[in-house]
Amino acid sequence: MTPCALTVDSLNPKVLALADHLGDNAIARRAQCIQNEIEAEPESHPFREIIDCSLSNPQSMGQRPNKFFREVLALCDYPHLLEQSGTNSLFSSGAIARAREILDLFPGRATGGYSHSQGTEGLRDIIAAGIAARDNFPCNADDIFLTDGAAPPVPYFLDESRGWGVSMSDLKKQLDSARSMGVFVRGLVVINPGNPTGHVLVEENQREIVDFCRNEDLVLLADEVYQENIYADEKGFHSFKKIARSMGYGEGDISLVSFHSVSNGYYGECGRRGGYMEVTGFNSDVKKQVYKVVSLSSCSNISGQILMSLVMNPPQVGDESYASYQAERDGVLSSFARCAEAMVRSFNGLEGVTCSEAEGAVFVFPSVRLPKKAVAAAEASNTQPDAFYALRLLETTGIVVVPGSVFGQMHGTWHFRCTVLPHEEKKTMTVIISSFVAFHRAFMEEFRD
Amino acid sequence: MTPCALTVDSLNPKVLALADHLGDNAIARRAQCIQNEIEAEPESHPFREIIDCSLSNPQSMGQRPNKFFREVLALCDYPHLLEQSGTNSLFSSGAIARAREILDLFPGRATGGYSHSQGTEGLRDIIAAGIAARDNFPCNADDIFLTDGAAPPVPYFLDESRGWGVSMSDLKKQLDSARSMGVFVRGLVVINPGNPTGHVLVEENQREIVDFCRNEDLVLLADEVYQENIYADEKGFHSFKKIARSMGYGEGDISLVSFHSVSNGYYGECGRRGGYMEVTGFNSDVKKQVYKVVSLSSCSNISGQILMSLVMNPPQVGDESYASYQAERDGVLSSFARCAEAMVRSFNGLEGVTCSEAEGAVFVFPSVRLPKKAVAAAEASNTQPDAFYALRLLETTGIVVVPGSVFGQMHGTWHFRCTVLPHEEKKTMTVIISSFVAFHRAFMEEFRD
Repeated sequence: MTPCALTVDSLNPKVLALADHLGDNAIARRAQCIQNEIEAEPESHPFREIIDCSLSNPQSMGQRPNKFFREVLALCDYPHLLEQSGTNSLFSSGAIARAREILDLFPGRATGGYSHSQGTEGLRDIIAAGIAARDNFPCNADDIFLTDGAAPPVPYFLDESRGWGVSMSDLKKQLDSARSMGVFVRGLVVINPGNPTGHVLVEENQREIVDFCRNEDLVLLADEVYQENIYADEKGFHSFKKIARSMGYGEGDISLVSFHSVSNGYYGECGRRGGYMEVTGFNSDVKKQVYKVVSLSSCSNISGQILMSLVMNPPQVGDESYASYQAERDGVLSSFARCAEAMVRSFNGLEGVTCSEAEGAVFVFPSVRLPKKAVAAAEASNTQPDAFYALRLLETTGIVVVPGSVFGQMHGTWHFRCTVLPHEEKKTMTVIISSFVAFHRAFMEEFRD
Repeated sequence: MTPCALTVDSLNPKVLALADHLGDNAIARRAQCIQNEIEAEPESHPFREIIDCSLSNPQSMGQRPNKFFREVLALCDYPHLLEQSGTNSLFSSGAIARAREILDLFPGRATGGYSHSQGTEGLRDIIAAGIAARDNFPCNADDIFLTDGAAPPVPYFLDESRGWGVSMSDLKKQLDSARSMGVFVRGLVVINPGNPTGHVLVEENQREIVDFCRNEDLVLLADEVYQENIYADEKGFHSFKKIARSMGYGEGDISLVSFHSVSNGYYGECGRRGGYMEVTGFNSDVKKQVYKVVSLSSCSNISGQILMSLVMNPPQVGDESYASYQAERDGVLSSFARCAEAMVRSFNGLEGVTCSEAEGAVFVFPSVRLPKKAVAAAEASNTQPDAFYALRLLETTGIVVVPGSVFGQMHGTWHFRCTVLPHEEKKTMTVIISSFVAFHRAFMEEFRD
């Protein structure tokens, strides 16, 4: 017996209505279950390990943290080191200099106190300067709100659009349809570089989106957390703020929020929970309300705040740490690019599979034309066809991907999202691709119409 | 002009209805304003600095972080140090050993990956063992949810009770009155050791509260974040879970959530945002919903998770770091006790002021009988009488306290909450007390009936 103080019936119905995280818990739960079975009985499945290609979680896949970032964090945790001569032989002088600069931003060097609710003022100055240098347009430190990653602030808003190139006519149709049903649409979320697609928007498309939001009185919520991860040579990152400002639109012309985090760049510090939102073009009454909501839950964690400042102000040309920092960065990004290329090539060689070139972020998002028999089998087991395919993949190979139905996709099309993270040194990528190819061939054979 | 995508009228009305944080923003804002004026013009006020006695934020008041905790954090940030011989001369061997143990809990020593949504499994094991050792009753690591401090999880719940000893008849009266107005009361929040009062509940009172919650089908939400801060010799900390279990009540008898954080213990790591909730006595359907809500927002930050494990498993007798750790701890707690004692003695010597002995947490909460003229002057300026008193105190002395009306108090009584943190080495406590005494005498003189 358990006490009846709370039952599911007495919970807030909105809690019950929440979808499971990403909707893919069935696959994640099954993967966890298989993992446990393998640990108990190594021969229990046709493979020896689960290979997680579902989550952007690079350090858990074996990627090493960036050395400069971690040196600075350690010195800020234990500033006593800065007064010891032995420290010079254990830490790079660039990291020592940076840690001193950062600690001096905290009165009494106290990194263990609550900061301003928006984040430590000096760190916001550094981040604002980094944004201004990136965009070549001014950035005000008062517009920066430091957060525990990019996840917490989003749930206040309603509408979103994801995808490869964004079609303005589709967008307009969806907006009008929502409004005709009485939905008060407040904003548009655009993820660039794209998740789940790995696509990087072209500037012309970004300008169309900015004008669309202006004309329709929508807040443009720009999820720009993959801004450092672009590996297509001809593409670059252009923030929506830079695009809007270069169109001549100022504070008074468009309401814009840009999100970034320390989780999603090539350095992948997911567990450190640092992020910011840059809030521009809101009237002061609305901004006061944003501040009020933010200040309800203390400041974000200081390690995450420091890390965010390092991301936006990494070692520069001329700094002692620049060469090694840049080598680490290029190493990671070129590894992503090689993985992505190998995956795209292999997927495109498979019957019924097409996969766009990956340009950024850490994903590929191939489309699979599933045979009717497979769709019928999925329906018979009350599963989405792409989830059916992903579960079969898991049971056969141990590879975990996210079915496209989790993100929404054109009716009658099926996709899966696969990360390009697996560590090359471990040869995991080769293993993944060869098991995938064998699985897909057998699957198509089994369900061929 | 600003864009009209969002106006205050189009925001969620619940956001507008939110009270400003703690409701004391008028005083905090005025203090910030005065601080700016002093920086611009040092002679602009009758004092040279703002002395913040409003917030439990010890490191910002000059308290040094605990050395062992910070050594371990630094080593976990930059594990490369563990392979260098020079590290032995810079870090204590106890911290080195502990960092190795902690890093081994992370597959691949990857402290930069997302953890399980409830927190890293090995760290939850350590925390559960610490709770079991504290209470002498079992604790299940699956009941532990690691959080970014103790602030985030609370807002789902409705009712709370604060205070010195809790009167059962008052509590019953309030509950019946709320229910008769159609309020579905789900839980009771009890803060022990108390905020704002600094009171530590006696065991008999805790048993009454447990029985009250059982009989009335209420979830008991135990805010136990000050559990390490008890400096009254005859008092000790007893968790509500320990009390309930020692009454013979198990999982099936009472729904109980205990909150703890790394912010509020004597070590005061407020900015690091670590915490846990221990969730017991819920049926599995409800617990699944708790897990779903928690997993919506990624894991809590890993540094905070590690710190929480250190708090619940500090160096033990026999460990190399024990003596120095214990000396730091005792130094901080005895400093709190001396400050509290000096404050209580001085306050009790003032006309119209009575102040209970401080037993724990970091606060004293004196009551002030304000003259009718002062109450009338407050009403004339549309201010609560205790806020009027606190604003006058700020303008005259630079001291910031929190008026009792922010927390709720018996009708016709007035209080203020004052921290006992100010750093003894800086002699701030003496300064605070003498300015306070002078202010109060002049105030009473001015408004005497």
